[in-house]
Amino acid sequence: MPNYKIIVEYDGTKFVGWQKQENGQSIQEALENSVKKFSSEVVNVYGAGRTDSGVHSKGQVAHFKINKNFPLKKIIGAINQHLKPLPIVVLKVQEVDENFHARFSAKLRSYKYCIINRNVPLTINKNHAWCVFKKLNIEDMKYAAKFFEGKHDFNAFRSIDCQSSTSIKTIKSCTIENNQDEIYIKVSAKSFLHSQVRIIVGTLVQVGKGKIMKDDIKKIIKNKDRKRAGPTAPAHGLYLMKVEY
Amino acid sequence: MPNYKIIVEYDGTKFVGWQKQENGQSIQEALENSVKKFSSEVVNVYGAGRTDSGVHSKGQVAHFKINKNFPLKKIIGAINQHLKPLPIVVLKVQEVDENFHARFSAKLRSYKYCIINRNVPLTINKNHAWCVFKKLNIEDMKYAAKFFEGKHDFNAFRSIDCQSSTSIKTIKSCTIENNQDEIYIKVSAKSFLHSQVRIIVGTLVQVGKGKIMKDDIKKIIKNKDRKRAGPTAPAHGLYLMKVEY
Repeated sequence: MPNYKIIVEYDGTKFVGWQKQENGQSIQEALENSVKKFSSEVVNVYGAGRTDSGVHSKGQVAHFKINKNFPLKKIIGAINQHLKPLPIVVLKVQEVDENFHARFSAKLRSYKYCIINRNVPLTINKNHAWCVFKKLNIEDMKYAAKFFEGKHDFNAFRSIDCQSSTSIKTIKSCTIENNQDEIYIKVSAKSFLHSQVRIIVGTLVQVGKGKIMKDDIKKIIKNKDRKRAGPTAPAHGLYLMKVEY
Repeated sequence: MPNYKIIVEYDGTKFVGWQKQENGQSIQEALENSVKKFSSEVVNVYGAGRTDSGVHSKGQVAHFKINKNFPLKKIIGAINQHLKPLPIVVLKVQEVDENFHARFSAKLRSYKYCIINRNVPLTINKNHAWCVFKKLNIEDMKYAAKFFEGKHDFNAFRSIDCQSSTSIKTIKSCTIENNQDEIYIKVSAKSFLHSQVRIIVGTLVQVGKGKIMKDDIKKIIKNKDRKRAGPTAPAHGLYLMKVEY
């Protein structure tokens, strides 16, 4: 039974998130419907990252199995045709080993968070970046970001809804780039806790505002207390960029 | 009577364009309403460039005169407050000489056109770039772009609706940058004919597709025949970036 890996881009603004839910349209459901329409097979589409409502993707990976064999060009064309007019598109499809699992085989997930630091609201990038009015100290943020790298207990950096049995995670890299008023926070790890990236971003913004001292990140991690970390940054600035296997 | 210069950013997607029209909402009208709401004065807001429906701005300049004197911070805050929830924002306001006219005093207008060259539809950038499916030859496009620079009769590169008495214009620069699948065409001139930038872009895309030979641009300009130039590129890839005085 052929197993297909797809790379999926989407604008998460109007979806309830990646995962199927009863209260609205999900990316997963839209993909499953689309695969069903062209193949006449009922499939499960499994994603690498269960992005929240409002979170975007430029490189979500998913997989699904269908009985019939189709040329790859036919698959990508048909799925994209049936996805219209939704802002979801399959960028690439390839046949993979039957044991490949988008979620469980993933070795590295990379997210990017986009902040626009200016004192007036956004227009063109409205649902695609977080507008922070107060002038941020980027150098302090860059310094603080380094403390997140490595293996730590990230209990202070997970949502109260997080169901993971462990809060120990290893962040491969946490770096910040900026260009004029745009600030990009890039975080990579094998896996993340629920809302971990957004809480890290919210905390780094508090550092940029001078409300958390840059050297205090170490202590906040050590204390494992969610209340000492910053707020959860809004979903609409977050992009799942890449999943590696 | 104080004269105020404002720099305005907007997402042009849902507007009929800059200029007031009876068939829908314009940027100009939204700004005039907003100024009226805080100052109680009926004003005309004059823009430097009459952008078409769908065209965006990161640096449109406009001016208006009001009788009362307000602190600049009050003006920007009040206009932006009254513009909500429209995707229009004043980035900057300053008091200028009473003779300053956003349109007639302008010395250089700079536009940027954004193309995404890939074979699947856009999601995140849907209304903010032109998706060209066929692989473009960027080097040919860069070579061809140079022919547009300088003083020429651009009759082949204006809309049939163009009301300008002359079709002679001087393009200061026409350059192309690219990064992965993104292509940016940047064009600057003191002034432009109606749809000139979009027809230049449409023609350069024909060059990139191999449908117009790169050296033929010279002849197309010389022949002054609109039918020999390329199609008008869609409005939603165009950004008014900057107006200089």
